[in-house]
Amino acid sequence: MFTSMPITLDLALGVNMHKLLIVSRDADAYRERIDAHQIASLDIVQAVSDIRDLAPQDRVDILLGDPDMCAQSLHRIPEIDWIQSTWAGVKPIVDTQKASTLLTGIKGVFGEQMREYVMAYLLHFNRQIDEFKQLQQRQEWLQPRCAPLSGQTIGILGLGSIGLEVAHTAKHFGMKVIGVSRKSIENLSIDKHYTLDQHADFAPQLDYLVCLLPHTTATEKVINDTFLSKLKPSCVIINAGRAQSIDYVALQNALKNNRLRAAVLDVFEQEPLPQSSPLWRMSNVLITQHTAAISNVDDITGVFMQNYLHFCENKPLNFQIDWDIGY
Amino acid sequence: MFTSMPITLDLALGVNMHKLLIVSRDADAYRERIDAHQIASLDIVQAVSDIRDLAPQDRVDILLGDPDMCAQSLHRIPEIDWIQSTWAGVKPIVDTQKASTLLTGIKGVFGEQMREYVMAYLLHFNRQIDEFKQLQQRQEWLQPRCAPLSGQTIGILGLGSIGLEVAHTAKHFGMKVIGVSRKSIENLSIDKHYTLDQHADFAPQLDYLVCLLPHTTATEKVINDTFLSKLKPSCVIINAGRAQSIDYVALQNALKNNRLRAAVLDVFEQEPLPQSSPLWRMSNVLITQHTAAISNVDDITGVFMQNYLHFCENKPLNFQIDWDIGY
Repeated sequence: MFTSMPITLDLALGVNMHKLLIVSRDADAYRERIDAHQIASLDIVQAVSDIRDLAPQDRVDILLGDPDMCAQSLHRIPEIDWIQSTWAGVKPIVDTQKASTLLTGIKGVFGEQMREYVMAYLLHFNRQIDEFKQLQQRQEWLQPRCAPLSGQTIGILGLGSIGLEVAHTAKHFGMKVIGVSRKSIENLSIDKHYTLDQHADFAPQLDYLVCLLPHTTATEKVINDTFLSKLKPSCVIINAGRAQSIDYVALQNALKNNRLRAAVLDVFEQEPLPQSSPLWRMSNVLITQHTAAISNVDDITGVFMQNYLHFCENKPLNFQIDWDIGY
Repeated sequence: MFTSMPITLDLALGVNMHKLLIVSRDADAYRERIDAHQIASLDIVQAVSDIRDLAPQDRVDILLGDPDMCAQSLHRIPEIDWIQSTWAGVKPIVDTQKASTLLTGIKGVFGEQMREYVMAYLLHFNRQIDEFKQLQQRQEWLQPRCAPLSGQTIGILGLGSIGLEVAHTAKHFGMKVIGVSRKSIENLSIDKHYTLDQHADFAPQLDYLVCLLPHTTATEKVINDTFLSKLKPSCVIINAGRAQSIDYVALQNALKNNRLRAAVLDVFEQEPLPQSSPLWRMSNVLITQHTAAISNVDDITGVFMQNYLHFCENKPLNFQIDWDIGY
């Protein structure tokens, strides 16, 4: 998206040197991409993909990194001006760092992947792909009918840039789209807006529930037993936000007792999901291993370089985290 | 789509009585829907769901029916003014009846179902849903990456109302959309248009090939060994048009030798597909039993009633078949 953006900072910026530390599973790839821009003012002091390799740092001006690795590094870095997260979710940093630090996230690069992920699984259930495969195995010609998606209701929890992209695509398919977010929202793709405390009105309408909430104290376990009990037994839940929004024990019980059709789960409180988790073995659970929307090094580098330009020019950075709400 | 259209023909039409014969698997449902309109001028002489029940008919003004059943009935009906097909494909009638008869098809009611069908299977392969299920069965956390659909190329054979609806949705997902049709077409969703004899340029570009061609002498076995050999081995074929457009023996060979990733087949030369067909048992074939877009009695009745209004008023009917091209 931002990959081919030209960066021409070299002229004015030779004066101020900025020390950049990279802590990310993709550290080498980030170093290579940033080096390719040949910015004289930017000095990559270290790029580590394993936190145990982090050298003692006197001062770092800028930290670019995966939030969990950032959280583990921060106590070893006395001074820091700006942290650029490589993920959309920044909770590990918010929980660790003092609120005065300039912290920026990532937006606008996950919506495309997420709408493909959500529609893939929504259509998977709606077109009964597994049922047709079973008929094929038995060589039975029964011609089951699939109800059109058009006219069915999708509920989206979380109406940030990703949620709105999913809403837009659901609307393209003629679905009724209702959504929940903290702030009321005016958007052509959202037929009706609810707040979290209106779940008793919201939940019973849904054929599909898509959870894209960030992890904050306000969103923890909002999908609990009470919420789940309001859903139709034919409802399919897709969670591609954060595991903490859903009470997974309550969800497991609902699925076990067929009070829901199925759940597609991308995120888990512990990742990799431990082998002992019963979720692996439930026939109405599909596990997608936190792959719904993957940070692409080129996209993230684009966001970082654009923000570095603003940083040098003392302009406001894109996608600044509001420490009060945590995203 | 047309279901709630008010029909108020009773006034002027009491004079001319029209004898209507219905031959369809859904004959009873059609009789009930048409009776509900209480049109005095329309006399349903018989409604049969099994051709063996057809009584000898002196004269029928209008025949509403499934094309294969119409074809079997026509030699027993001496006079007929207008045939309304209940399907989009009218080849059985075109092959049987003399070209002077007014014949109307069905358009505009299948696009919505077809775009859901095509996108369901396209996203099924693109998001590697089966691969994730296999990982889940083995409880392996490997986080395979899925390339975004956006930027990939879909080729659509047949750019009628259904093909254009699929093109519009593929474009919504950011795909490159190229298409083949007899006549050149200007449409915002089609990036480039080809004719069938340009398949050597068309085929090698495709990540997904969707065949929606009608069955005519010009479309028979256009996807043959030569065409298939031009496709990338990673290409997925979806055939939801007519079986006759594809040389299924050549297709089976290509799939057996992994010269294609997979085929999703909705239509077959013989339906139900015989148990002896090797297609049932091929691991890279998905069979959907001619269910991609199903004639809905309410929709078809709406098309018929609208056309009956035009018929009574001597206006041109909707979706008239051109006997020269066969659709």
